[in-house]
Amino acid sequence: MTIRVTVWGENVHERTNAVVARLYPDGMHNCIAEALNEDEALEARSVTLQEPEHGLTEELLDHTDVLVWWGHAAHGKVRDEIVDRVQARVLQGMGLLVLHSAHYSKIFKRLMGTTCSLKWREAGERERLWVVNPGHPIVQGLGEYIELPHTEMYGEPFAVPNPDEVIFISAFEGGEVFRSGLVYRRGNGKIFYFRPGHETYPIYHDAQVRQVLRNAAKWARPEGSRWIDRCPNVPPDRAPDPVEIKGEGLHKPGEEGFR
Amino acid sequence: MTIRVTVWGENVHERTNAVVARLYPDGMHNCIAEALNEDEALEARSVTLQEPEHGLTEELLDHTDVLVWWGHAAHGKVRDEIVDRVQARVLQGMGLLVLHSAHYSKIFKRLMGTTCSLKWREAGERERLWVVNPGHPIVQGLGEYIELPHTEMYGEPFAVPNPDEVIFISAFEGGEVFRSGLVYRRGNGKIFYFRPGHETYPIYHDAQVRQVLRNAAKWARPEGSRWIDRCPNVPPDRAPDPVEIKGEGLHKPGEEGFR
Amino acid sequence: MTIRVTVWGENVHERTNAVVARLYPDGMHNCIAEALNEDEALEARSVTLQEPEHGLTEELLDHTDVLVWWGHAAHGKVRDEIVDRVQARVLQGMGLLVLHSAHYSKIFKRLMGTTCSLKWREAGERERLWVVNPGHPIVQGLGEYIELPHTEMYGEPFAVPNPDEVIFISAFEGGEVFRSGLVYRRGNGKIFYFRPGHETYPIYHDAQVRQVLRNAAKWARPEGSRWIDRCPNVPPDRAPDPVEIKGEGLHKPGEEGFR
Amino acid sequence: MTIRVTVWGENVHERTNAVVARLYPDGMHNCIAEALNEDEALEARSVTLQEPEHGLTEELLDHTDVLVWWGHAAHGKVRDEIVDRVQARVLQGMGLLVLHSAHYSKIFKRLMGTTCSLKWREAGERERLWVVNPGHPIVQGLGEYIELPHTEMYGEPFAVPNPDEVIFISAFEGGEVFRSGLVYRRGNGKIFYFRPGHETYPIYHDAQVRQVLRNAAKWARPEGSRWIDRCPNVPPDRAPDPVEIKGEGLHKPGEEGFR
Repeated sequence: MTIRVTVWGENVHERTNAVVARLYPDGMHNCIAEALNEDEALEARSVTLQEPEHGLTEELLDHTDVLVWWGHAAHGKVRDEIVDRVQARVLQGMGLLVLHSAHYSKIFKRLMGTTCSLKWREAGERERLWVVNPGHPIVQGLGEYIELPHTEMYGEPFAVPNPDEVIFISAFEGGEVFRSGLVYRRGNGKIFYFRPGHETYPIYHDAQVRQVLRNAAKWARPEGSRWIDRCPNVPPDRAPDPVEIKGEGLHKPGEEGFR
Repeated sequence: MTIRVTVWGENVHERTNAVVARLYPDGMHNCIAEALNEDEALEARSVTLQEPEHGLTEELLDHTDVLVWWGHAAHGKVRDEIVDRVQARVLQGMGLLVLHSAHYSKIFKRLMGTTCSLKWREAGERERLWVVNPGHPIVQGLGEYIELPHTEMYGEPFAVPNPDEVIFISAFEGGEVFRSGLVYRRGNGKIFYFRPGHETYPIYHDAQVRQVLRNAAKWARPEGSRWIDRCPNVPPDRAPDPVEIKGEGLHKPGEEGFR
Repeated sequence: MTIRVTVWGENVHERTNAVVARLYPDGMHNCIAEALNEDEALEARSVTLQEPEHGLTEELLDHTDVLVWWGHAAHGKVRDEIVDRVQARVLQGMGLLVLHSAHYSKIFKRLMGTTCSLKWREAGERERLWVVNPGHPIVQGLGEYIELPHTEMYGEPFAVPNPDEVIFISAFEGGEVFRSGLVYRRGNGKIFYFRPGHETYPIYHDAQVRQVLRNAAKWARPEGSRWIDRCPNVPPDRAPDPVEIKGEGLHKPGEEGFR
Repeated sequence: MTIRVTVWGENVHERTNAVVARLYPDGMHNCIAEALNEDEALEARSVTLQEPEHGLTEELLDHTDVLVWWGHAAHGKVRDEIVDRVQARVLQGMGLLVLHSAHYSKIFKRLMGTTCSLKWREAGERERLWVVNPGHPIVQGLGEYIELPHTEMYGEPFAVPNPDEVIFISAFEGGEVFRSGLVYRRGNGKIFYFRPGHETYPIYHDAQVRQVLRNAAKWARPEGSRWIDRCPNVPPDRAPDPVEIKGEGLHKPGEEGFR
């Protein structure tokens, strides 16, 4: 069954910076969607910040199995109610791939509960992403490491909760290291943070990076059913072992709780 | 060295509901602070929602080792900038005890990244909190379980991330179960969610519940130093192995990154 | 693609205890295999302790995607080299379902690193297994809980490492609770501990228990490739950045390390 | 209260290899114990493989708060019943520091449940251990990284379960990376794996390595009480809600379970 992927791009620097426009004439989001569509199991489309509801309508998210998020300069422009909507869908089981500078996106910080800060340097230096678990679905088809000749450096400490597994660790030419591939489960959604992707280097044209994106999209597909999470009251006579009300309470029978 | 504890209470039902006022004439927050002060290692004070900055000034939080949070009816009245401030301090190492209905507080949802929903029933039924790890510091001085004659029921599913350890699991008279004591580490802060505490039952007068609160406050004290987390740029000539700038970038040397 | 499942049974009480023989005339392992074969995606066969190599030849394990383990009275009779072999395959990616009294099997204790002890009582009492995450693949097709009229009680503390997720929590008629469905990842193998299954009660004839077994077998199938884990030496001239040997060492070039 | 530390050394190469004997004339174990004794909160002694019961008597372990383990060439000579004994004490709450080549010790493999393999190269190259969490107690007093001029290389994949937190990540001169400081909790014991320590380089004379050892010993001290873990039967009339025996069982009342 085809996995439906939506690539979200903020689409800012592609239109304002000549270097980025030259590397990604159709926008980074379309370059990423194209990489995903090279796998028949995946069907990717893209939407951008500038569309109504940032392109992330209820309708679209309802028909999205995996969402890919690329943002950098415009995190603050993403409206909170859209972040709420994406978060709810992740908890219900939609996969989420968070790329590069999206470590600072509202949705990632929201799901992590931490600052998600790191060290950085933009010097076009070499990065090697070492594979920490060669049997993991996300690294299929790779060798021992991916080498990228020119990247932005991200260095530890990376202020995120301990992940379920570290998939890649990077070593940079300047000497720093970084956990550059991390997986989390929140609710029923699988989340993959993947570091590569600076907009002034042709990272999303790299064959191995594109392989990781395809692997990750397949790994992050929903399993199980969609659980609509709410906070139900269970009346005393509907308990498995029905109980009598004893003492005094705050709520009248059938009343909604506080939120 | 004395552990400085601040008990935060929303202080709403104590002033508007006769049952609660009778059980907690000085407010639930003062009853909790009193329980903590029975241990010489702890020095507890209380603040409330109604004070300026909800009582949680920078000054106070700077001198707080462990914060206890009790809220129910007024979660929405807590201002976001105060939640930001508390979150920052937790990540720096301040302990946080989250009680009962504070599963729905802004600070707990913020740190968890999930909805934190559950099932509930207010029928004054019996609860037994079983100890899952008898050697854990939080359960010292308890037997196999704590029995509370009259409580509100909270039932699974409890929509939180998988904890670092489950400390208590409750069984209710009506048949439901709940993970009623959970520990997390976020940044350098230790977080303990503890279920008991409904305001119309005298839960915080219970000797064993008070013992757990004292144990937990001591367990949650900061260890290590306070790390002020920011997102520093490392200039090319300050790398451990200095690098030359190659290719084109987005940022000018020394410029701040996007947030 | 069909998932190949092997059900391992110790096959002791079926031949020595009249109650068990009446409930499971073909052995518990065959009853379990039959439950699995009700799903077309699964192809299950069974082997037993009494066969050469306990039925777990290299050949068979090489062609097994998921192994189901049932043992109780004869844990000590399982030879250590067979346990080594099973452990190696789990780490390479074979799924493992560990049932009921197999909490004390050599393979489970080996993979957990803890004692795996618990409380117990054999009184034929009622158990309810509450679903902790309704969206998880393992609980598809179930309601809020499974009710078993007669089971052996297992109670906390269950001395295992913190799981990746708690899937079921049981409440027993006598009052105890237990984490009765737990998932772990070790290496690339997915492990599911599932509590139900005492041999003198017809647990494996229960439709919902059989549903869980099928769901879990599908969930535990291998993903990714089989990583043959060894401890390779990387010679200085084969490093990504070749190095010169400096100082004195313990090993001669090309020598194997100590184990 | 003084923390009682026992340093266990296999004491092989110190007596058979001239390089090692020159660097560690009193043995590596005594050099490590000396480093620990520089902190007044710690009281360290050492024992070796060659002593009766490898020096690890019941009596000694009963009075040990934290055990430090150094082994390399003689893992196979450590008797299984001594490993059982150490494992039991860790689960009860004794801290355990596992150094360098002890990744392949019986006790570490036992507690992890995985192969604990890695890549390696002995070329005396430079290692930098980057601090992943500057606020953690184990890294107090350090800068951004520790630099060791000459070390053995250990490279990923490191075949261990996902840790509770990564404390250090190393980058080697040859290009490889490694998670070189990892913390785990098993039962009530805190475990710290720390990579540095090859016997032909003067690693345990390094001031920063010695600081980490002291920090880690203090971090790993027991908290809470010692839980003696066994598998108790709870008779039907001793259940919180006493039950009547229904149906047929395997065990006679009061009988021990199978193990």
